[in-house]
Amino acid sequence: MKASRPHVRVVLVRPRNPLNIGAAARAMANFGLRELVVVAPHPPVWQETRSAVGAEDVVKSARAVNALPEAIGDRTWVVGTTSGSRRNLDRELISLDDPGLWLPKGKRPGRVALLFGSEKTGLSNEEMSFCHALVRIPTSEQCPSINLGQAVAVCCYELARAGAISTRPLPAKSHHSDTAHFQSVDHVFARAANVLDDVGYLKPKSRAARLIKLRRLLLDLDLTNNDVKILGGILAQIQWKLENL
Amino acid sequence: MKASRPHVRVVLVRPRNPLNIGAAARAMANFGLRELVVVAPHPPVWQETRSAVGAEDVVKSARAVNALPEAIGDRTWVVGTTSGSRRNLDRELISLDDPGLWLPKGKRPGRVALLFGSEKTGLSNEEMSFCHALVRIPTSEQCPSINLGQAVAVCCYELARAGAISTRPLPAKSHHSDTAHFQSVDHVFARAANVLDDVGYLKPKSRAARLIKLRRLLLDLDLTNNDVKILGGILAQIQWKLENL
Repeated sequence: MKASRPHVRVVLVRPRNPLNIGAAARAMANFGLRELVVVAPHPPVWQETRSAVGAEDVVKSARAVNALPEAIGDRTWVVGTTSGSRRNLDRELISLDDPGLWLPKGKRPGRVALLFGSEKTGLSNEEMSFCHALVRIPTSEQCPSINLGQAVAVCCYELARAGAISTRPLPAKSHHSDTAHFQSVDHVFARAANVLDDVGYLKPKSRAARLIKLRRLLLDLDLTNNDVKILGGILAQIQWKLENL
Repeated sequence: MKASRPHVRVVLVRPRNPLNIGAAARAMANFGLRELVVVAPHPPVWQETRSAVGAEDVVKSARAVNALPEAIGDRTWVVGTTSGSRRNLDRELISLDDPGLWLPKGKRPGRVALLFGSEKTGLSNEEMSFCHALVRIPTSEQCPSINLGQAVAVCCYELARAGAISTRPLPAKSHHSDTAHFQSVDHVFARAANVLDDVGYLKPKSRAARLIKLRRLLLDLDLTNNDVKILGGILAQIQWKLENL
């Protein structure tokens, strides 16, 4: 099959205000997006989410999951949002109206996840390490922090404006992209982390930071399904050898 | 003085929810807009408006006025927003990302007012007759009605994205545009309406509709200050003659 535009899933990570989930759903419906996943909402937050006007379908089909990997497992391209006010970002931020953001050069249209962090803190460094790309919502320096529902509205508007998304339902099985899903890459990551633990590369102090770098490195490689198979095999073999020395 | 970009004032007409006024102010601050005017808010709505995070300056300097003409009196270009779901619009809608929307061809950058209608009903036909241009926020047909705070956020984002606005303070006296202010045009309108009443052109049944058409006609003429002077003089003379027949 031929699909010319990516399918975009909106993922809210640890939202604290049920009004914002409803507001996000309504903005999605306004601009033709359908799929909403919420990661680790406080249980009352999730229960209090009311159908926003006109967004009943989006809210009804929304899923709550416990952890970020569950929300993006089948995605081939993960984009995180930030207002760019955090100083410790060492990654390039892509402009929200850059068409390459949704359909990277040389790649085929895939399954995209667009991540929004918690109202107070945005996405954590660890959560950002799950992203192939980070997008900056171009707020002013004097008032960088944007409301969650409004951030979703602005991003959905931009997706619709740029004609960047497909509004057709995704076929159940789609093989139009050879890019590995996030889940497959994460499998390689877990194997690699095991090996690095076994060889003593990961020290308690720097373990978390090194794992974030490793995940980012793996995402930047843009692995195909075949790459994943080969790398996974190599790592399994190394681990077997280490355990049977 | 030289100004290359228009100054944009956001005008909320008859908002019913104080949260939406705060949300609008925050979105404005996020994208570098400063000036907010609220027309005929319900008094409790206005009192309950709290400073939105980071938007204290916008809320503090916001003004409440009784009627729309007060909010746009000094403007040279008035843009109304609509989701385009109303069927009786006989005017062309301009795309939100059309650069000509904010700086019409052949005109110099002016003082723009961007109007948002009430949550339930949007702008009325009469309110739209005060607008030089109508802009459609490109929501989907399945869910056209957008939340007021999110609509303001999307429009402010688009203004910032297109680099369409000046974020420098407006000089106290600015003569960079020869285009007549709304107030001057409205003065001509009032004189013309008087004359038409006197000659029996305005019948009780069709009066309101004809006045809406007349105001729109005058706005479409893009009168200069000189035009206004001449037209005002002619109408005054006609009226004098009618009253002294």
